[in-house]
Amino acid sequence: MTMRAAVAGASGYAGGELLRLLLGHPEVEIGTLTGNMNAGQLLGSLQPHLTPLADRELAATTTDALAGHDVVFLALPHGQSAAVAEELGPDVLVVDCGADFRLQNAAAWETYYGSPHAGTWPYGLPELPGCRPELRKATRIAVPGCYPTAASLALFPAYAERLAEPEAVVVAASGTSGAGKAPKPHLLGSEVMGSMSPYGVGGSHRHTPEMAQNLGAAAGEPVSVSFTPTLAPMPRGILATCSAKARPGVTAEDVRAAYEKAFADEPFARLLPEGQWPNTAAVYGSNAAHIQVALDDSARRIVAISAIDNLTKGTAGGAVQSMNIALGLPEELGLSTIGVAP
Amino acid sequence: MTMRAAVAGASGYAGGELLRLLLGHPEVEIGTLTGNMNAGQLLGSLQPHLTPLADRELAATTTDALAGHDVVFLALPHGQSAAVAEELGPDVLVVDCGADFRLQNAAAWETYYGSPHAGTWPYGLPELPGCRPELRKATRIAVPGCYPTAASLALFPAYAERLAEPEAVVVAASGTSGAGKAPKPHLLGSEVMGSMSPYGVGGSHRHTPEMAQNLGAAAGEPVSVSFTPTLAPMPRGILATCSAKARPGVTAEDVRAAYEKAFADEPFARLLPEGQWPNTAAVYGSNAAHIQVALDDSARRIVAISAIDNLTKGTAGGAVQSMNIALGLPEELGLSTIGVAP
Amino acid sequence: MTMRAAVAGASGYAGGELLRLLLGHPEVEIGTLTGNMNAGQLLGSLQPHLTPLADRELAATTTDALAGHDVVFLALPHGQSAAVAEELGPDVLVVDCGADFRLQNAAAWETYYGSPHAGTWPYGLPELPGCRPELRKATRIAVPGCYPTAASLALFPAYAERLAEPEAVVVAASGTSGAGKAPKPHLLGSEVMGSMSPYGVGGSHRHTPEMAQNLGAAAGEPVSVSFTPTLAPMPRGILATCSAKARPGVTAEDVRAAYEKAFADEPFARLLPEGQWPNTAAVYGSNAAHIQVALDDSARRIVAISAIDNLTKGTAGGAVQSMNIALGLPEELGLSTIGVAP
Amino acid sequence: MTMRAAVAGASGYAGGELLRLLLGHPEVEIGTLTGNMNAGQLLGSLQPHLTPLADRELAATTTDALAGHDVVFLALPHGQSAAVAEELGPDVLVVDCGADFRLQNAAAWETYYGSPHAGTWPYGLPELPGCRPELRKATRIAVPGCYPTAASLALFPAYAERLAEPEAVVVAASGTSGAGKAPKPHLLGSEVMGSMSPYGVGGSHRHTPEMAQNLGAAAGEPVSVSFTPTLAPMPRGILATCSAKARPGVTAEDVRAAYEKAFADEPFARLLPEGQWPNTAAVYGSNAAHIQVALDDSARRIVAISAIDNLTKGTAGGAVQSMNIALGLPEELGLSTIGVAP
Repeated sequence: MTMRAAVAGASGYAGGELLRLLLGHPEVEIGTLTGNMNAGQLLGSLQPHLTPLADRELAATTTDALAGHDVVFLALPHGQSAAVAEELGPDVLVVDCGADFRLQNAAAWETYYGSPHAGTWPYGLPELPGCRPELRKATRIAVPGCYPTAASLALFPAYAERLAEPEAVVVAASGTSGAGKAPKPHLLGSEVMGSMSPYGVGGSHRHTPEMAQNLGAAAGEPVSVSFTPTLAPMPRGILATCSAKARPGVTAEDVRAAYEKAFADEPFARLLPEGQWPNTAAVYGSNAAHIQVALDDSARRIVAISAIDNLTKGTAGGAVQSMNIALGLPEELGLSTIGVAP
Repeated sequence: MTMRAAVAGASGYAGGELLRLLLGHPEVEIGTLTGNMNAGQLLGSLQPHLTPLADRELAATTTDALAGHDVVFLALPHGQSAAVAEELGPDVLVVDCGADFRLQNAAAWETYYGSPHAGTWPYGLPELPGCRPELRKATRIAVPGCYPTAASLALFPAYAERLAEPEAVVVAASGTSGAGKAPKPHLLGSEVMGSMSPYGVGGSHRHTPEMAQNLGAAAGEPVSVSFTPTLAPMPRGILATCSAKARPGVTAEDVRAAYEKAFADEPFARLLPEGQWPNTAAVYGSNAAHIQVALDDSARRIVAISAIDNLTKGTAGGAVQSMNIALGLPEELGLSTIGVAP
Repeated sequence: MTMRAAVAGASGYAGGELLRLLLGHPEVEIGTLTGNMNAGQLLGSLQPHLTPLADRELAATTTDALAGHDVVFLALPHGQSAAVAEELGPDVLVVDCGADFRLQNAAAWETYYGSPHAGTWPYGLPELPGCRPELRKATRIAVPGCYPTAASLALFPAYAERLAEPEAVVVAASGTSGAGKAPKPHLLGSEVMGSMSPYGVGGSHRHTPEMAQNLGAAAGEPVSVSFTPTLAPMPRGILATCSAKARPGVTAEDVRAAYEKAFADEPFARLLPEGQWPNTAAVYGSNAAHIQVALDDSARRIVAISAIDNLTKGTAGGAVQSMNIALGLPEELGLSTIGVAP
Repeated sequence: MTMRAAVAGASGYAGGELLRLLLGHPEVEIGTLTGNMNAGQLLGSLQPHLTPLADRELAATTTDALAGHDVVFLALPHGQSAAVAEELGPDVLVVDCGADFRLQNAAAWETYYGSPHAGTWPYGLPELPGCRPELRKATRIAVPGCYPTAASLALFPAYAERLAEPEAVVVAASGTSGAGKAPKPHLLGSEVMGSMSPYGVGGSHRHTPEMAQNLGAAAGEPVSVSFTPTLAPMPRGILATCSAKARPGVTAEDVRAAYEKAFADEPFARLLPEGQWPNTAAVYGSNAAHIQVALDDSARRIVAISAIDNLTKGTAGGAVQSMNIALGLPEELGLSTIGVAP
């Protein structure tokens, strides 16, 4: 039952990571690759690490080019997915790595993205309560943002078990690939090496409402999120340091129990043994999320930290994991929990 | 009025940075250099960047070796300063880069350091309210920890003006030099490059009570601090992302005004123009602290971020700045606000 | 025909990379893991990236522990392999990632390693002329050094076709994992980030005679090698910039033809299209070697550059590739030519 | 005798480094700053590390803007200096950090730069035999390229003493700031971190004829240079690994003596003690060049390695050093041999 998959946006970082994973997926055959800016070029010059696809030529992103596939992955700039998806038939599985269909709240979308809301698709974070059932037999999937993936995995167990007050603080450090491949001065190697730099401070980052949506759903009440992203001098990885005030009476044992329950049967989200904290190197290139939690009894805060690879579990790996579920394949197919370290 | 200065612990990172700065100080002559582990070795093989001192030989750290100087800088492992300082006369200015004399609360010391409290010296963070007067004519100075320097500068204005609730959250990323020069597996380049890793999570880091002490003094009431340090893949720099809930009614204008007031006349702590956020590269090798603040009105949190060089403003530069004050020299002498970038 | 494999030295970088690859090998089952310094510890605390093996306990490196396997990989410090190998029966395939059995010339061994020569095993660089036949049905394999792998792949075609004078110059930059996991001050992240540093200059590096052996065999005459290794601020990767004077009359077309011929049928060594130069990121975590060559007609030198991952193709991947040949398995089994980039 | 200095191209990396140094120069007052692309912007937003100049506005690069200064530094793209310099009077000292006036051979210029040769100015590498006299009272100075600075310092003593055959091999690793601040995809942090990549291989890099010019002048005969530059994952620094065949009969003592003689009285170029090799971290942000040499007796090659900061000694520091000589100031004024490390 080999599925034929197209990737729109194959010259970017998300597209490249999708191809890296799909090359190792036993039930997927790689079909058309598109990239508007680089149509006509060979992939070998744009993504030299994808050795087996070096001689593949990129097509323009058109309905014709994407037709005739079982799965179409969209790794396009925000706002372009809706038009492309509309042209694809209802039988095609469309997996959108962009933001267009992630938010349920149209007002929040318009506030943060400044354009009309295109709609809401099943949300591709299977570890969240309620997500897996919606993904089964889905033909449209919205892949979560990389930061919301990291922060939601770190905090949802505390909210699902009513252990935390509904005000979360998230400070996350991301590798630079999260900012994409379009060249901008502040993303130059000379600028980012040796430097930590915050951006989107004060609640303005577009991933803020997505985190609030996920944590609020887990909590059954609105959760406010204070989110500060920072750019770290590394190509990949997100370390999300998340905390919230513990509700009165909550103990360290309560916290541990909630997290053990949440991740007991998860193939990719792993609660580390007590005392061992996650780091991004351990999940480099893998679909694993490493998670640890502690109760700071003096400050009465639950501190939960997750490490993911922003391009793998945070984007392309999450996309493939959700695709597997939608297609009825084993959820782990073609994905690995083994990081490339050191 | 040239002062003769000794540096105990000249082979480590703090000692090396002290020498880098003192070499450029017009009123200081560099005297004895000690380093127990490396006594007898030439500095050129241990600190090859200090070209003008390449032929200096290290002595053992003894009272005799340190005698006959106007200023003695101690860059020793925690717990060793008290014994050395006792032997030095009351006329010698002793500047301790270690933790021994930073805390006022003996119980907090014993909880976090597990040894008897040696005492409290004037605290060398001149920008904090009340510190400069204590430093003038001081003969003993406790140099603050690097993280408390960054976090206190970021948050004290909010507390001094009663804008923030007394529960602070601090997540800070530090370059690896903050962990010192003693070789340990998790500090190997192979481990730290490409990785963000937290440590001392849940309130266990020893800099936590020092932050609480500084912020509490500014607030006039106890302030709890939830502190998470992380190791970032860079040699130097601290980016401290700090936040606290805004008190009811506090506006963005109130916040801006408090910070403008706090830093208006500071030679080293600089509030950036609105909209420009600090990054560690801009203060690399300099004694500047770059600070920015915003009110996240949706989450009702004041978010303040500071960037310093952990070895300069966070240790050796702060030490020299306080020395200048104690000796009655211009505070800026031998120090720079110019970073080495890119 | 699942083979049971033991790894001696599982806590180090070579051992960790072997396990990363063997976990994905369809015909290998991972048996005993040993690590003398860390015997009794769980692998999860030492190699947190190897998520599926987190609960495996390390044994001491004894004959008993290694008995009962089809394949034993030795990732031990130089000089320890011979004693271990002797105890293992002749039917066991022993793959030594150390240097002990790489050199044919006992005198060269003694000069460079200062101990008696243990012997010579079939050499595990299948791309070199004459190596594959010796590896088939071998029960002992000497895995090449990482630098000799990179330099030999870059230059052997020029020597095999008699295009180059027998004096080679090799300048190679390596990621720090090549220096191992034993903590030493000069390998600290603080020291290596932002720094390029040479070592073993002037012909003293132990990989020099191994390169001369490989190139001399290809040339059919002795080849002298001037080799300078440098440590680069990255965890993995070798970029080897190699050159030799072109023989009189040699043209760019001659050079291109020789390299096309040498790599036409190789599954892992890839000659890039003309004009595209290799970089280490493109082979990160993969078993591919990317190679390019040019004739500098003005200086009359053939300049050949190769990029490999020192831990994969340069150590553990090369080991698995040779194991596949020795066991009669498809050479590419369990190995990938896809890098993890960016 | 304070000199008023203008900097054309103040928003780029060379311009920023010039300003960093000039801010600390006791005889220079900083006048007009220009930057065509960023005219009208404040320097604080473009070069946030230059804290004291944060409120300076950039002008367009016009003759009027540059008039009225004693010294004008040009940090412009290649090919733009000649037109600007012509408009400045003969009494103004013009220091060109671009390539326009470096080469003596018009044919070589045209081959490598593809435009008419603008002329030749006194060459600003004071350590080279014959350069200092030409710089005294000069009113036009061509600052050398960064790679030629590193390679010429490493090899000229061997050629000046006739110890080496006239065929040099130079392999140099440079930090990314050498490639400038214009954003290009291959210079993104995501691409360069963790990667070594060669470029301009096979003799095509424009710094090749400049090296040949310098070494040929030292040797008194033409010297061919095989030059391979590589981009290293660090913001600053050049490590140049240079070698040439030793002439018959040359001994290690001959080599050492030549290098000791060459650098005995140099304030910035330092021959390290025997056995200690340079690294780029030790000269980070400093005007020092660290040099070491060895004779590889087996391969009969002289191997000389130099480390410089490409922006300091390799560009802006070299410019200030030559300015000092031209103005009759002490050569070391405003410059330091102290690196910022770790």
